[in-house]
Parts: sequence; structure tokens; C-alpha cells
Amino acid sequence: MNIPRTSFPRVVIIGGGFAGVSLAKKLSKQEVQVVLLDKHNYHTFQPLLYQVSTGGLEPDSIAYPIRKILKDFPNFHFRLANVEEINTEAKKVITDIGTLKFDYLVVASGSKTNYFGNTEIEKNSMAMKTIPQSLNLRSLILENFEDALLTSDLNERNALMNFVIVGGGPTGVELAGALAEIKKGILPKDYPDLDTRMAQIHIIQSGDCVLKGMSDKASAKAEDFLEKLGVHIWKNVRVTNYDGKSVTTNSDLTFETATLIWAAGVKGATIKGLDASEFITRGNRILVNEFNQVKGFNHIFAVGDVAFMETEEYPEGFPMMAQPAIQQGKQLGENMLRLIEGKPMKPFEYKDKGAMATIGRNKAVVDLPRFKFQGVLAWYVWMFVHLFFLIGFRNRMVVFVNWVYNYIRFDREARLIITPFKRTLKSKF
Amino acid sequence: MNIPRTSFPRVVIIGGGFAGVSLAKKLSKQEVQVVLLDKHNYHTFQPLLYQVSTGGLEPDSIAYPIRKILKDFPNFHFRLANVEEINTEAKKVITDIGTLKFDYLVVASGSKTNYFGNTEIEKNSMAMKTIPQSLNLRSLILENFEDALLTSDLNERNALMNFVIVGGGPTGVELAGALAEIKKGILPKDYPDLDTRMAQIHIIQSGDCVLKGMSDKASAKAEDFLEKLGVHIWKNVRVTNYDGKSVTTNSDLTFETATLIWAAGVKGATIKGLDASEFITRGNRILVNEFNQVKGFNHIFAVGDVAFMETEEYPEGFPMMAQPAIQQGKQLGENMLRLIEGKPMKPFEYKDKGAMATIGRNKAVVDLPRFKFQGVLAWYVWMFVHLFFLIGFRNRMVVFVNWVYNYIRFDREARLIITPFKRTLKSKF
Repeated sequence: MNIPRTSFPRVVIIGGGFAGVSLAKKLSKQEVQVVLLDKHNYHTFQPLLYQVSTGGLEPDSIAYPIRKILKDFPNFHFRLANVEEINTEAKKVITDIGTLKFDYLVVASGSKTNYFGNTEIEKNSMAMKTIPQSLNLRSLILENFEDALLTSDLNERNALMNFVIVGGGPTGVELAGALAEIKKGILPKDYPDLDTRMAQIHIIQSGDCVLKGMSDKASAKAEDFLEKLGVHIWKNVRVTNYDGKSVTTNSDLTFETATLIWAAGVKGATIKGLDASEFITRGNRILVNEFNQVKGFNHIFAVGDVAFMETEEYPEGFPMMAQPAIQQGKQLGENMLRLIEGKPMKPFEYKDKGAMATIGRNKAVVDLPRFKFQGVLAWYVWMFVHLFFLIGFRNRMVVFVNWVYNYIRFDREARLIITPFKRTLKSKF
Repeated sequence: MNIPRTSFPRVVIIGGGFAGVSLAKKLSKQEVQVVLLDKHNYHTFQPLLYQVSTGGLEPDSIAYPIRKILKDFPNFHFRLANVEEINTEAKKVITDIGTLKFDYLVVASGSKTNYFGNTEIEKNSMAMKTIPQSLNLRSLILENFEDALLTSDLNERNALMNFVIVGGGPTGVELAGALAEIKKGILPKDYPDLDTRMAQIHIIQSGDCVLKGMSDKASAKAEDFLEKLGVHIWKNVRVTNYDGKSVTTNSDLTFETATLIWAAGVKGATIKGLDASEFITRGNRILVNEFNQVKGFNHIFAVGDVAFMETEEYPEGFPMMAQPAIQQGKQLGENMLRLIEGKPMKPFEYKDKGAMATIGRNKAVVDLPRFKFQGVLAWYVWMFVHLFFLIGFRNRMVVFVNWVYNYIRFDREARLIITPFKRTLKSKF
């Protein structure tokens, strides 16, 4: 890669997610050269991906061009690249667009869907970790309803209208709530020829509650909200397989569905060269010390979802979500400057700002460190916080316009099949 | 297709563009069963496609779910289908999802890009007639700049940054203007490592002026605006070939470019069964009488771009744009009801409402039947008219927010490579 060397040390950051971008921002006005690599040219606001999948928002309102985030900063370089390997000895990253030397390396590659080794599920299910995946899900949901119109086989029609979500975390809960609202508010008008009441939404949860990471109150209330919306919650059930038609579980339960959404877990998106067992710990995450340094290296770091920092309060590492990533990115920025100047680094301390999830209109749950509440107020807080954390004024405005409209009209207008995901059309009449 | 027959006559409409949708609206509250077929589940507001290609708008602001447009009307059925053939004898349309009988058929299939038989150009160039095509062009433009960063071959870099637009109609002119503004306002910030001044935008025009269908004043002023924006206009030049690298013309002129946008013409999108020479006339359009009836049939009609109606004032048929399509759709709706009731139909009369094109900020040309003007006022009128004709309140709001933002900030934030179009990356360093 032809990026000219300067007299400043070069920091290569792999990944433009929450961690990578907050780190780059911290470093951007300093005497370092920053090279950020990402396989997309945009930063994704992942917490709202489920709204893209369900036609509530278009990608541009939750994506932001990475080049634009850092356009005013000198010494910043972005390259659209897929990192294939890290050579820690030679201080090089090897990518699909060439090799790049680094002085400091930060792995901020995030997480990817964890199928726990089940390739059949991986092949047949839908994930929702990226914008292209979310758009595929949006297309599939709509295509399924179009196909349901074409079949006279009742079982097939039901399978096309059923949705099975595996995993009762925030992603699963928020998606289930959105699907339930679509079922109620949009499908009967869009598909008067179909008995859309037959569409069912299931959450399958291996543990004994949804939103496991949140308070018992939040968890119970979320369950209550979901049930009011008609979502079926199956607890203590583990999905064992999905062949594209039938979901089997460790119990007698089976489900016939054309759409299985796998939101059952994530794992660190490690990279060859730093994926040996000496670096990796639980959840396929890279073990780091309190300065986010990778074991055995002074100049290689990991932050965000891919990093595993064990603390007394978090023996299983920090939760894999936005806040720890943002905080680590910022702190590492400061620490790297200290390191470069020969000053001692400060250990990272995670400030838990709470967690929240929305289930539907006027229905959300919020756990703040000192205050937990649910319902309408929680829903407003959820919206406000998400608008606040979105990058860019225009994005906020567009999301705001869409939310107000969707709220007033009980609608989601981005129900467009722009890129068809399937077009099986098995049935010919 | 399992659409139940009712006692009402069945009208099958092929195509959910301007003509098909205005016709369906007219028929929707009447005693007819309407079946609308389209290969997309949305209506596209084609006049703003160039803004999708250039990152100014996302698809959802110019697309509208067809099911939603007609959701409140009984007797309306939509099917996502690709029509393969029309059997005029048996009164059937054959589609990829089955066969459908009709009592009345309306072909509103619009137009498609006309390559005048040059398959090499068809293979290597980009078109901009649909949303997926426009998104592909958006991706390609951005990918080219990412690739330009990677090459040290100066000729290759120039080819990646050059854009050649064939055709000086509204599409070519509006796209060229938008690209010129991107070159000026966005590229230098996004790509500080590139000398983006070297990016060139060319319009190649076979005739002796741009915007041929408009007044001489509009045409001259548009040319003036384009030149001020740094766009090169080549008149009386005909492109003879494009192999993906070099554009050859009927003169000595050649252009090296990785992006050729073909906006040189359209032709009727005819359908097998109605494409015999007895039905087809100039521009591959279906010859219709003053009631939009296809020659030899009482119950088969064509409207919009695909229809060719010869009148004294328009010996070459009506211009292939939104207004004739909308007006024909409405009028045909009324005529079909008259026909069904046994009343005489009224001949179609086209009311020319004028034409307009925008070149850039504060730069547009407007030809109204009695009044022609250019510049800032024309630009406001252009915006107002386009906002007015967009379907849906939310779409208008989202477009408005984007336009205000883009105007104030000289920006276009949807510069996202969501679905990569190419990822050649020939160069490795």
C-alpha cells in the first residue's frame, strides 16, 4: 500500500466500528500517522440494524462515511481493505490490497456471529451484524410474503409467514418486537389476500429469561411486552439444527419456517497471526492487559468486542456492546500518546452507563446504574439516547423524521426489495 | 396465479411506473378487478435516480411500496412478477410466477436503455434506469476512487477518476452536474492523498446541443452552467465502442475511463407476443390509437413510454417522460370505464406542462409553455415541482431534509458502498 511514511510513528487500526473510530478521533490531531482499514467505507451504528431489517430506516441513516468522520484531520488515511493476516514479527499487516508496515497496531475488528460450529445453521439462517446482512433479511421477509401469496399449500404458506429468532438478547428482542408490529400494522393492509394473523413470531432462548444482561425487572417487563405483542417466547430451549425448512431443538419442539434469524451469540473476529491459542481466550476474544495490550507485545493492542480484559467486576470480560468499545477506544488513544512520549499508561476502567432495549411503540426497558424503569418514559429515553449517539446531524434528522412518521402512521415505508435475496418461486399455478 | 375471479371484469396492468400507477388509481374505486404486475415491489420516481447514483439520496426517498399506494382500495391485487409473454388470443399473460387470464390488458412496461445493438457497450457501460442500477453506479464511482489510491500507474489513476457520460439529455446533464459538484466539494476532503483536480467529467453528445427537447435558451444556458462547473461537452460526436477501458468515437477523439455511463437513449420495453413488427414502430414502441388501444384489439392497451401515439403536433410520439405517462394513465382509466359501460371513449390529448432540468446548486433551466427561465428561480421551481410529484409525505420530508442539508453543507452523505459493484484491485503494492 503506497502510504508515504512521515516522521511520525504509524498507528494502524483494523476496523472502523465504535472502538476504531473513537480511537482514531483521539489520535487524529496528534503527532502520529493513523491508517484505518475497514472492509466497508462506512461506520455502522449497529444498535439500529434491526430497524433496517424491518423497513423502518434506510442504511444511510445509520451508516456514516468513515472518510467524512475524519476528513478535517491531517495524518489520517483510510483504506478499504480486508485484513488477511498480521505479521507480528515483521510488524506488517497483509491485506487484499497489499501489505502495510506499522509501528503500533490496534485490532478493533469487532465480533462476528457465533454459530457454535453448526455449519448447517450458518448456511441456512440469517444474521444481522452488518448492513448488507440486514438488507438481505429485509428482502427475505418481504419476498416470503410475496411467495406466501403464490402457494396453495397451507403448510408452506405458514412456513413462509413464520419467523423464528434464536436468541433473546437485545437484537432478538428488538427484532421480534418490530416484526410483531409489522404483523399487526402493515401486513393486513399490504396483503389483504393473506390471513396474516397466521404469521407467528417466535423467540427461542437457551436461558431462562430474555435480556439476560439486564435487571430482572427489565427482563420480566420485556417478556411481558413481547407477549402482549403476540410474540411466543420459548425458554430453556436450545436449537440443534435448521435445514432451511425445519428447526429442531433439544426438546420435542420443532418449528417450520422459511426464516431463521440467528441472534444467539457473537464471538471475537480474530485475525490470522493473532489467533493462536496463546492470544485467545473465552468467546474467541484476544486477551489484553489493563492497557489493552496484547500479551507479549508492547505495541500491539486490541479494543472493543474483540478484546477480552478480565477485571474483578467483569470476570467474563466487558459486555460486547458499544459503550466498552467507545470507552476503550478513547482511553487507548490517550495511552498510546503517553506510551509514545515515554510516560506511564493508565489502566482502563469501564464506566457502566447502563443498558436499554426497545420492544415496540411506547415499550422499552432501561437500566441505568441508579435507576431502572420501563414503558413510555423508557421508550423516549431509548430514542433520545440513540439519536444522540448517531454520528452526524443529517443522520439524526433523517432518523427523527422517520421515527415521527412511523409513530404517527404505524408505518415503515422502506419495505422495498431493492436487491432480491431469493426468488425461489417454487409454486407455479 | 391464484387470484380469485369476481363478477367484475379483470384489468391486468403490466408495470407500476407513472402510467401504471395513475391508471390503477383511477380504476381502484370502480367495479373492476385490477391486477398490477411489476418485477419490483416499489414504484420508482425516475427523475431523481441520478441523486441516488451520486450519494445525495437513498433509494427509500424516491421509491414507494406499490402495495401501499393502493392499500385502501378493494379489488386491487399486486403480484411481484416478471412478465414473459402475452397471449393475445387466449387473453393470458405468462409470467415467472404463473399464468393469468385477463379481460382487459394494459401494457405499461416503460422503456429500457437503448444500446443500438452494441453489445460491447451494453456489457461494459453503466445504465441508470432503475434503483439497483443507480446503486451500482454509486458503488462503482466510490470504488474507483478507492482504487485510484492504490495504483501508482498515472494513466490508470486518471482512467479511474474520469467519467464519460454518453448522451446530453436530462439524465446526462443532471448526472454530469452532480459529479462536477462532488469533484469540487467532496473529493478533495475525502481523498486528500489524490489530486482530484485531475478527475474529468465528459458529456458526449451526438447532436449539436444538450437538452435537445427543450428551448434553445435552456439548452444554451445548461451548456453554460455545465462549462462553469468544469464539465467538458463534446458535440456532434458519436461513441462507437467501449471495451471497459477506452471509448472510441466516430472522430479522432478517444477517452480512457473506467466508467462509461450510457444515457444516450431509451426504447420501448416491449413484451413477447406484442413485439411483432405489425405492433411495433419507431423507438421499439407499441403503436396505439388515440384511445391507447393496440392495433387490432379492443381490449389491449399500451400507455406511457412503451406506447407510440402519433398526433399532428407530435409526429414522433410523445416524449418518453413522466407527464405523458401520468396523463395517459389517468385518461385510459376513464376510457376503460366508458368502454365497459358501452359508452364512447374520449381521444387522448397531451397537455404539455413543460420540461426542466437541474445542473447544480442554484442552476436549473425551466421551460414552461408560456415562460422560460434559468438560474436560481428555476432551481427553486425544479425542487418544488420534484418534491410535489414525489409520492408520500415521508418521502418528501426525507428528500427535503437531505436537500437542505446538502445545500448548506455542500455535501452528499450517502456515499456508501453497501453492495460493492466491483472489487478488481488489480494493483498490489
